[in-house]
Amino acid sequence: MTYCVAIKVNDGLVFAADTRTAAGVDDVRTYNKLHVLDVPGERVFVILSAGNLATTQYVLAYARREMNDPEVRTSLRTVRHMFDAADYIGQLSVRAQKQARQEEGYSSVNVETTMILGGQIRGEDPAIYLIYPLGNCIAASPETPFLQIGEIKYGKPILDRFVRAHVKLEDAARCALVSLDSTMRSNISVGPPVDVAILPRDGLRISHTLRLDFDTPYMAALKETWARQLANAITALPKFDWEVQRSLDLPAPAPAAEIPETPASQEQTPASFTNV
Amino acid sequence: MTYCVAIKVNDGLVFAADTRTAAGVDDVRTYNKLHVLDVPGERVFVILSAGNLATTQYVLAYARREMNDPEVRTSLRTVRHMFDAADYIGQLSVRAQKQARQEEGYSSVNVETTMILGGQIRGEDPAIYLIYPLGNCIAASPETPFLQIGEIKYGKPILDRFVRAHVKLEDAARCALVSLDSTMRSNISVGPPVDVAILPRDGLRISHTLRLDFDTPYMAALKETWARQLANAITALPKFDWEVQRSLDLPAPAPAAEIPETPASQEQTPASFTNV
Repeated sequence: MTYCVAIKVNDGLVFAADTRTAAGVDDVRTYNKLHVLDVPGERVFVILSAGNLATTQYVLAYARREMNDPEVRTSLRTVRHMFDAADYIGQLSVRAQKQARQEEGYSSVNVETTMILGGQIRGEDPAIYLIYPLGNCIAASPETPFLQIGEIKYGKPILDRFVRAHVKLEDAARCALVSLDSTMRSNISVGPPVDVAILPRDGLRISHTLRLDFDTPYMAALKETWARQLANAITALPKFDWEVQRSLDLPAPAPAAEIPETPASQEQTPASFTNV
Repeated sequence: MTYCVAIKVNDGLVFAADTRTAAGVDDVRTYNKLHVLDVPGERVFVILSAGNLATTQYVLAYARREMNDPEVRTSLRTVRHMFDAADYIGQLSVRAQKQARQEEGYSSVNVETTMILGGQIRGEDPAIYLIYPLGNCIAASPETPFLQIGEIKYGKPILDRFVRAHVKLEDAARCALVSLDSTMRSNISVGPPVDVAILPRDGLRISHTLRLDFDTPYMAALKETWARQLANAITALPKFDWEVQRSLDLPAPAPAAEIPETPASQEQTPASFTNV
């Protein structure tokens, strides 16, 4: 399994990925899933991958080779639009899968890969695309300006609640780290270290890359702070109406819509049955 | 789908469940999934259910009938231990499934139900059990004092991070509400209103039940407060070392373990490829 997320805010793009690759619990390795392919000042692409590692490496190998080959007509160096870049990567992925499937009779291995391609081409807006194993793709929406691949559920609520277009690039990166940390707690096939890349709008080069392990001082501080803040956030939620109303920094809570206790619970016999 | 959670803290038990039942997106109904069966002052059981509704109703019907029948030897009125109560409910569930499966040739419907049984019998500790479709069960652990059934992933991180044995009963209830709210945002087959029941330790009766819809003033206030607090929590996380260090209420962040930018990004040609 894998967990990768890409976030698009007004100020640019954030990419984050775990690094755990597992072919069964007894075959666990660490691999990069965050790949930067760029012509600095001209165009920057970041590829995140979840799925078959061989398919991913095939795609990356060809994408790199063709980008550097002046004879190749369509490559990440020549595409005019971000959509075309996503389409190009999608076609490479389809080709890799087809080639592997010629040998499918020998194996039940799933050779599919799902990818995220994000970046910016000079003169165009930054964009992020989710590329399906079929080679087709979707962009992020203004309402939900992030894309996830792999084990997406545990880390989605924090993105849902926080990520909006106006969010600061670094805050988006912190949110991505929390999202990854939540996922790593619950799915051991998603594991550290975590990679992060930040691409400021119109910078046309990656401004910062981070590799964070659990014991990296920044990650440790982030986890500790997050746990403390979250506990504070829950205890500062509105009190139920039966709780003593203490004066807090927060506005007085609205009264709870309490269902009256069932009359049955006042009686001693016979056994009472309540559907709340 | 469904999402139910039961939490066990030192002060007692909290139960929470959504109410959406869906047999396809075009057949959505509202059903209680939180059922209280009690002999107040003697014993209280709460049953949460996820899965086949007919199986669930069979289990509840027999559990209630036998609890009120003095001729029945084993019922929720007679069991001595919480484990025996879970085992009894598990056996009812297995019986319901077996009966339905006699007609299985006619259908591919899944008749399985997963349940949580929690409560307290006088003289015993409160307990929560997860009852599998096979009728067997597991209790919550001291390390993870909560149990979930149904769509468990979206709402798990907040429970993982907050729920500990020492947590106040009402804080545990607020945490359960946040967990449910996170799930309802991401899975439309989990829906409002939400039911909550609180069973204080040794009270031997449900102290409070709530039914909260999105527009119930308490739920609306909780959602609004939570969104605000979470945003504050993210923006208050440690800054990256390249960000301006502002004086905050928080301790100064530890320095980030930044990987140097790739030398390639300083060059203009040829195209550079960076694996972060």
